[in-house]
Amino acid sequence: MVFRDYIEDAKSIFKRLVPDNEITEVVYEGPNIVVYTKNEDLFANRDDIAIKVAQEIRRRIFIRPDPSILKDEDQVRKIVEDTIPEEAGLKDIYFESDTGEVVIELEEPSIISQKDSEYVHSIKNNTNWSPRIIRAPPMHSHTVKEVREFMREVKDERKKFLNSLGQKLNSPVMIGETWVRLTALGGHREVGRSATLVSTNNSKILIDCGMMNTNTAGEKPWEGSPYLYLPEVQPLSSIDAVILTHAHLDHSGMAPMLYKYGYEGPIYMTQPTRDLAVLLQNDFIKVAHMEGYKAPYETKHIREELKRTIVLRNNETTDITPDVRLTFYNAGHILGSASVHLHIGDGLYNVVLSGDVKFEKTWLFNPANNKFPRVETFMTESTYSGRDDYHKTRKDASEILVNIINRTFERGGSVLIPVFAVGRSQEVMMVLEEAMRTGAIKQTPVYLDGMIMEATAIHAAYPEFLNRNLREQIMIQRENPFMSPIFKKVETREQRLQICDSSESNIVLATSGMMNGGPVMEFFKAWSDSPKNSLVFVGYQAEGTFGKRLQRGAKEVSLSEGGKMTTYQVNMNVETAEGFSGHSDKKQLLAYIATMMPKPKRILVNHGESENAQDFARQIRQKFGIESHALRNLETIRLY
Amino acid sequence: MVFRDYIEDAKSIFKRLVPDNEITEVVYEGPNIVVYTKNEDLFANRDDIAIKVAQEIRRRIFIRPDPSILKDEDQVRKIVEDTIPEEAGLKDIYFESDTGEVVIELEEPSIISQKDSEYVHSIKNNTNWSPRIIRAPPMHSHTVKEVREFMREVKDERKKFLNSLGQKLNSPVMIGETWVRLTALGGHREVGRSATLVSTNNSKILIDCGMMNTNTAGEKPWEGSPYLYLPEVQPLSSIDAVILTHAHLDHSGMAPMLYKYGYEGPIYMTQPTRDLAVLLQNDFIKVAHMEGYKAPYETKHIREELKRTIVLRNNETTDITPDVRLTFYNAGHILGSASVHLHIGDGLYNVVLSGDVKFEKTWLFNPANNKFPRVETFMTESTYSGRDDYHKTRKDASEILVNIINRTFERGGSVLIPVFAVGRSQEVMMVLEEAMRTGAIKQTPVYLDGMIMEATAIHAAYPEFLNRNLREQIMIQRENPFMSPIFKKVETREQRLQICDSSESNIVLATSGMMNGGPVMEFFKAWSDSPKNSLVFVGYQAEGTFGKRLQRGAKEVSLSEGGKMTTYQVNMNVETAEGFSGHSDKKQLLAYIATMMPKPKRILVNHGESENAQDFARQIRQKFGIESHALRNLETIRLY
Ligand SMILES: [Zn+2]
Ligand SMILES: [Zn+2]
Ligand SMILES: [Zn+2]
Ligand SMILES: [Zn+2]
Ligand SMILES: [Zn+2]
Repeated sequence: MVFRDYIEDAKSIFKRLVPDNEITEVVYEGPNIVVYTKNEDLFANRDDIAIKVAQEIRRRIFIRPDPSILKDEDQVRKIVEDTIPEEAGLKDIYFESDTGEVVIELEEPSIISQKDSEYVHSIKNNTNWSPRIIRAPPMHSHTVKEVREFMREVKDERKKFLNSLGQKLNSPVMIGETWVRLTALGGHREVGRSATLVSTNNSKILIDCGMMNTNTAGEKPWEGSPYLYLPEVQPLSSIDAVILTHAHLDHSGMAPMLYKYGYEGPIYMTQPTRDLAVLLQNDFIKVAHMEGYKAPYETKHIREELKRTIVLRNNETTDITPDVRLTFYNAGHILGSASVHLHIGDGLYNVVLSGDVKFEKTWLFNPANNKFPRVETFMTESTYSGRDDYHKTRKDASEILVNIINRTFERGGSVLIPVFAVGRSQEVMMVLEEAMRTGAIKQTPVYLDGMIMEATAIHAAYPEFLNRNLREQIMIQRENPFMSPIFKKVETREQRLQICDSSESNIVLATSGMMNGGPVMEFFKAWSDSPKNSLVFVGYQAEGTFGKRLQRGAKEVSLSEGGKMTTYQVNMNVETAEGFSGHSDKKQLLAYIATMMPKPKRILVNHGESENAQDFARQIRQKFGIESHALRNLETIRLY
Repeated sequence: MVFRDYIEDAKSIFKRLVPDNEITEVVYEGPNIVVYTKNEDLFANRDDIAIKVAQEIRRRIFIRPDPSILKDEDQVRKIVEDTIPEEAGLKDIYFESDTGEVVIELEEPSIISQKDSEYVHSIKNNTNWSPRIIRAPPMHSHTVKEVREFMREVKDERKKFLNSLGQKLNSPVMIGETWVRLTALGGHREVGRSATLVSTNNSKILIDCGMMNTNTAGEKPWEGSPYLYLPEVQPLSSIDAVILTHAHLDHSGMAPMLYKYGYEGPIYMTQPTRDLAVLLQNDFIKVAHMEGYKAPYETKHIREELKRTIVLRNNETTDITPDVRLTFYNAGHILGSASVHLHIGDGLYNVVLSGDVKFEKTWLFNPANNKFPRVETFMTESTYSGRDDYHKTRKDASEILVNIINRTFERGGSVLIPVFAVGRSQEVMMVLEEAMRTGAIKQTPVYLDGMIMEATAIHAAYPEFLNRNLREQIMIQRENPFMSPIFKKVETREQRLQICDSSESNIVLATSGMMNGGPVMEFFKAWSDSPKNSLVFVGYQAEGTFGKRLQRGAKEVSLSEGGKMTTYQVNMNVETAEGFSGHSDKKQLLAYIATMMPKPKRILVNHGESENAQDFARQIRQKFGIESHALRNLETIRLY
């Protein structure tokens, strides 16, 4: 084991390049090195020095002002308020004292966002803080606001955490036999509780930590969560890094539990995944509580997770252990969803885990990336890889939905659309907004029940993760389709009952998407009896869910109503609007693999019903001549 | 978890059946229950009671005299000496005070061995000890004697160990999802360092713990031992049971190391495996020392292993964890070698691991058993499964060897046969003994160097593990082929040098069998130069061994001689006498599988060079339509 002291090396290189550098501290911040200095010129103007040092020691370098030279926050707030012109629409000011940045939220940042704007210079020179100008989120998101506030609250704790993480990351790699293994912990030959462990002789990395979507009565407790009690995983403190591909609970739902049972390390994800996951995890606890059972973790464990969350942008490579580098790539599935690229042992081996993918440009996102610098083993989802799973196009989907709605309205009925809060909701909203704007459907209120509006606001907060059309629309407030007046948030139970009883034709989007609970159930109970109404599925219904039973044509169903079972006749019209899926259908998945660059040597198939997954692996072998199989949960394959 | 207190249950059943039972103690001894009583009639004559209780509580019951009623050992010794008639040839008396048995070793046990002999009755009535009459080993084995003495020395410690093991075995099974996994830790797609972990939701069982045979210069340390540092295995104290299939170091060589690094549990094997393993492990330490490197464990760790050794007979079923039962079946490979049958979860699943197998009646053993009560997954060795590996018959082998010896003798040369001390040595000895007795070779001394004579004596001590012919021959002293005067043990280095320099034609059997050290090297160095001499391989030469290089035709080799390298010309005649293998060739392996009952659902292939093992799995799929593959080390497959 050869040890290199990056901190000392950085110090001496700075000394050489800038003798009067006035550096007060050099510390690790995760994989990066942060230099604090009292030399204003150095932190404000000498990015070239940072780049030079970074090249020499092969670690990213950030130069920041020493806290002692930062002006008092109240003073700075005043200076900023005085400096920023009124037409820029100052919305918020907050301080990132650890980075020496003052973040300035503007409604119209274009007015001063040029890097060398006189406003920016003036603020910097008068305060020693570096101004960062950002666009104020166009819609209010409670989650985004709270998460950001929380991150500022715990910044001292995070600084310590990132420093000790940095020390671990920069510790020498154990010399010895090198190997790479992949262990299926959940979501293999099934959909739900996704969890995969990639381990090397140096590192243990957990990718996703989800829960089963199905909370049916007959369920055994162990069927709800991944196999985290295996010796490969235990103790949880032996895990070096956790990575989330996206926020859906079948990928993120058990992540807080890791922090309940001893994990204290970092968890990597994109920024939208962070906010959406917090939203969905908190909701999970709330729903569990309302349904009378105890969630396996509490909100404090979500906060522990947040404290250790490290957000990465797509296509940005980061050391996550001494022998593994992580890069996220757009997966096209939901906001912030990513494929995980692991580069192991300096060129030794590359594994990519697709996460959930959509290989088609949707109303919201660009298609999943399938070009990687290198990939030896690729793991692909197979949710819709079944023989007959050919989706309609996006355009067809929209026409089908419009048609169902018009037919329902003609007979005086209402339309109930069960949706996941995240993903399908926003697509359906865009279709409805356009259909009403163009007159394809008459103007009617579209009620959003559950956390749909909140999830939508999070989408609006991260335009850089949306496709270009939508990004541009959102930026212009009056064109933001999500802010159309047709959308009404259901705020109270009274309001919900009112809509249920209304004699008008209404459209309701409500969670949960597979009808295993949530407000959608109230609407279903109220409307199922009448053949005038329509229930329209727009998303995947997993085996064992209530939604799947209805989709299969159940004519009579029992539901618990205040503790006792009540029988409901299903006379309402049950339809499926194909084409809204956030997953690729079989044709798309095959195209995704066929055009993948480079061609992987092995493809593992997960995240699909058992038969589908195995069958899809068989097809990959036949069509592409690539070694392929669907692991069973609890199996370990050796990659290298 | 339903808990049953077997001890209390046993007590109350005894109370019911024998009210005046005078029972003083009821304790676990491993999976069995032992009852101590002062009631002489109960322990001496009432096996029927033990059987009745056993049937009721479904645990084996042993009734033993309470130690307080056992007569003093010196007195008993005198009584035995006075009682046993001179013609029976009393050789030794020793006391198993924990079982209340006095073991009486006789040269001619037939004289009094009838169960109801008056001698036995007389001793029992006069001493309260139960006499056990056994045949004195026909050849002196230092190992057998020392192991037995040691086991008596540590009997108090063992009693405690067996008691606490019994408590564990009788603890309730965790309720929850049931699964069975198999992890390849060593000896998969390779020959050497055999180790396989079978784990369930309740148990962790390690089968074999061997070392690499190849100690070549370029070897990396991690290539010598199985992957014991994996999280599935660590900490070693989390293992519930270890099982050895046989004594060869590639299966047993690292077992003492388990006790060095924290394992304290039981290790199951046959009795001959116990003694042979001790012999080979001690020799390994000695050889390592002589060759100037440190063995990974010391003799004290071998003793720790011995203390926890539980010997089982073939075809005897024993609970080894709360959800796993073990049965050994004859494997025909070497003395005491066994296949391992694991019956998991009361009918849930059955796994059989072949160990090394010989599916042919040899000079020494019966062919491997291939009939099992049930078997879903079978793991087979594949050492000689390569395309062109067809062995000669036993008869051919003998003729080839005789022929090589005669040709060598005709030109005045000597014959050097590298052998493993255990297995092939004894077969070659039997061929040579017969050939000299029948005049096929002229009478010449056959020198045995290494531990061959000692290993042979261990064979003679366990006639019940030999085939019938040999068993009967050994029983009649003057017909015991191993005791023929042609065999001379090489006792000292002087003697060895004398043989090396002798102008006579000699035959030498010397270890090690793959010529990676041992006395065989001295003979090779002395004789390699002359084309008159012959080197005859009779056993498997692994890739990377010195033996393999010579077998491949190396004409010049370098060997270390007191620290410096010396070059040797290989002018001696190098031959291979096919047919002595302790492994089945491809045809035999296929017959072994074809006639296996019942037909397994899955066959895993291990213990073979990588290509051979994979190819053999392919053939099994094609020929038998059985799912088959060769795992890589570090892989885990889910069986159930
Ligand atoms: Zn709010
Ligand atoms: Zn998803
Ligand atoms: Zn998913
Ligand atoms: Zn063997
Ligand atoms: Zn072997």
